Amino acid sequence: MCETVGGARAVARCEYLAVPPYSDTADGLYRAYLTPAYTAAQGKLSEWMAAAGMQVRRDPAANLIGRYDGTVADAPALLIGSHLDSVRDAGCYDGPLGILLGVEAVAAFAAAGQRLPFAIEVIAFGDEEGSRFPAAMLTSRAVAGTLTPEALDVADAQGVALADAGVDIGRYRDAARAPGTTVAYLEAHIEQGPVLEAEALPVGTVTGIAAQLRYGVTVIGTAGHAGTCAMPLRRDALAGAAEMILAVEAIARAAASDLVATVGQLTALPGAANVVAGNVAFTVDIRAGDVHRRDAAADDIVDRIVAIADARKINCRIDLVHDLPPSPCDPKLMDLLDAATADAGLPVRRLVSGAGHDAMVMAALCPTAMMFIRCRGGISHNPAEHVAPADADVALAVMLGFIERLGAAHAD
Amino acid sequence: MCETVGGARAVARCEYLAVPPYSDTADGLYRAYLTPAYTAAQGKLSEWMAAAGMQVRRDPAANLIGRYDGTVADAPALLIGSHLDSVRDAGCYDGPLGILLGVEAVAAFAAAGQRLPFAIEVIAFGDEEGSRFPAAMLTSRAVAGTLTPEALDVADAQGVALADAGVDIGRYRDAARAPGTTVAYLEAHIEQGPVLEAEALPVGTVTGIAAQLRYGVTVIGTAGHAGTCAMPLRRDALAGAAEMILAVEAIARAAASDLVATVGQLTALPGAANVVAGNVAFTVDIRAGDVHRRDAAADDIVDRIVAIADARKINCRIDLVHDLPPSPCDPKLMDLLDAATADAGLPVRRLVSGAGHDAMVMAALCPTAMMFIRCRGGISHNPAEHVAPADADVALAVMLGFIERLGAAHAD
Repeated sequence: MCETVGGARAVARCEYLAVPPYSDTADGLYRAYLTPAYTAAQGKLSEWMAAAGMQVRRDPAANLIGRYDGTVADAPALLIGSHLDSVRDAGCYDGPLGILLGVEAVAAFAAAGQRLPFAIEVIAFGDEEGSRFPAAMLTSRAVAGTLTPEALDVADAQGVALADAGVDIGRYRDAARAPGTTVAYLEAHIEQGPVLEAEALPVGTVTGIAAQLRYGVTVIGTAGHAGTCAMPLRRDALAGAAEMILAVEAIARAAASDLVATVGQLTALPGAANVVAGNVAFTVDIRAGDVHRRDAAADDIVDRIVAIADARKINCRIDLVHDLPPSPCDPKLMDLLDAATADAGLPVRRLVSGAGHDAMVMAALCPTAMMFIRCRGGISHNPAEHVAPADADVALAVMLGFIERLGAAHAD
Repeated sequence: MCETVGGARAVARCEYLAVPPYSDTADGLYRAYLTPAYTAAQGKLSEWMAAAGMQVRRDPAANLIGRYDGTVADAPALLIGSHLDSVRDAGCYDGPLGILLGVEAVAAFAAAGQRLPFAIEVIAFGDEEGSRFPAAMLTSRAVAGTLTPEALDVADAQGVALADAGVDIGRYRDAARAPGTTVAYLEAHIEQGPVLEAEALPVGTVTGIAAQLRYGVTVIGTAGHAGTCAMPLRRDALAGAAEMILAVEAIARAAASDLVATVGQLTALPGAANVVAGNVAFTVDIRAGDVHRRDAAADDIVDRIVAIADARKINCRIDLVHDLPPSPCDPKLMDLLDAATADAGLPVRRLVSGAGHDAMVMAALCPTAMMFIRCRGGISHNPAEHVAPADADVALAVMLGFIERLGAAHAD
């Protein structure tokens, strides 16, 4: 029933929104929550929503919502969304593509005169990236009802409080959706990783947001003169850290699963070419879809770090910085996405999301489903971010198939 | 003929000079070239030199020199020296101990009424550390006659030019010693390394200043999200650098010689806990007493770095930053130091100096000899720097034995 040319249009619209007045900066996209570019982008998006057959409103958290009624008035809604804000010097697909595919899905049903047993609401969240206020996923937390009053007491880098940024702060938390009004939440998002490209797949079914552990490791050796300190007598903190970094990598590789472990930040002191490093601090970030797999790898990593320090007669301290639980997607909805993918003639691929998304927050409100779309080189948060229009067409086809199947399930 | 109690006195005098007015700072020793503390220390040192029986003068480079004539008037001199300046937050023995042991040696000969076939001149160099002007070993280069006029065009961090710092800049290079006036240069210096302590030896004979190579290595991988970039698809510049650092260490250890290789400085970018590092820069410092051994190790290291980059499909660039030739001590003088060490009832230990010293510069003028004195934990450039008075006594005994043997050789 549905044509898939709309995927290419969604891609074109992302690109349309990448420049002023829809970007706060002329040299590279930056669209921060509640800025003039944000308001302008909401204006353009509301035109597109209306043209697709939706009634448009702005909720108290300044999310833009377009509603396409179901067969019954006031039916609970399938929410389809993602975020409209961006990081600095962003790519244009990270966020908006998921919103605009939702708009295309509604446009396709509207063009066919088709209504579903539930309404469809397309939602454009406002502050997923935390690129203005020091609080990521602020507006999806408002919608999910998980926002504490204290969380609203934030200000941007210029000192502008959220309360003074163009929202009615007293009503902000009224954005929370009432129980029973939401059937499910569906988010399509670029993968921001290289897995789909490596396997030549346009889309994949997300199993959930990975569980994450982060450690801070401090290695304490003995600083010494690079010329006078003989090799056997050294307590080189940087050589010790190097061995630990390779152990982190080896353990994550050996897991041969969705598990990833990363040492991304390292500081070596005193940091001179002619001084053996006496003190090195580095981070270890460990993620996996399954919390037990993550914890097993973390235990191995901690054991190896301690063993390396002992063997080298250097000291180390390992501090747990944070421990985020996994946020699994709904198994039944994953099956529907898989089926819709197979319907489109494509191999089914499930993969975990190592990054956080609004879907993670929305899981507190309703069952969630998430689809990843291939992006070139896995590059994101960068102007080089790229999505092929044909991949967006595939994603739209899968999205429509998912909605049809969900509708059928609700009609039963 | 000589008592060795003077070694302990030399140590005590180093400590005496460690506080104001002989330090420019009250919280930790800092004595920079041509500062009030430097002048005050020269004043006290000239008193000690005079009391030991020397005629004292200041040369045009502001080095303090005490002369003890030989059996013949205007005889060429054995120069004994080291530097009077210090780094910030210094230990008090690095430099002054070699000068004060020279003073004690003269005091011992004077007390015994003994003259040698050569004069002894004790010299206190002024700017070995480069801790005020951006030019290390400025005043020994002046004495050795290796200073270009351009080298005098330097200013300190406050913008004070050397020409305005209390010296007659037009006469500065007249500090150069005339050919034939210098028999040899002898420097006693704390080891600033852990080798003598590890082998329970108070002193060692230095074979020369090590040849040094320094490289800057840049590793270019691909930055990526720590959560979304699967392990097999990563081009992790920091994991690659870690493997290179371990290779540097392994090659230096395998040499099982005086060769040392150090990665002391490392920067990983973008440097965030949740981002796979895309760019890492680090230094490699390689030193050995023998230039061929150094170069063989450097070739191995460069080959391994390139091989690691290739295997990981990352790029690297290796830039040679500097290449300093070795500065060997005089073989006959080494034999004399060894013999004097054996006379003192101690095992002979030869070791290379990985660090630079005034002796390196003086080798351009005359044969040089250098003796290392054990320091606790190899710690230097630090208030914890420590020399046992008993070790300084041994050093003085060896110095006196060396001078006697050199005198005997000249009398032949």
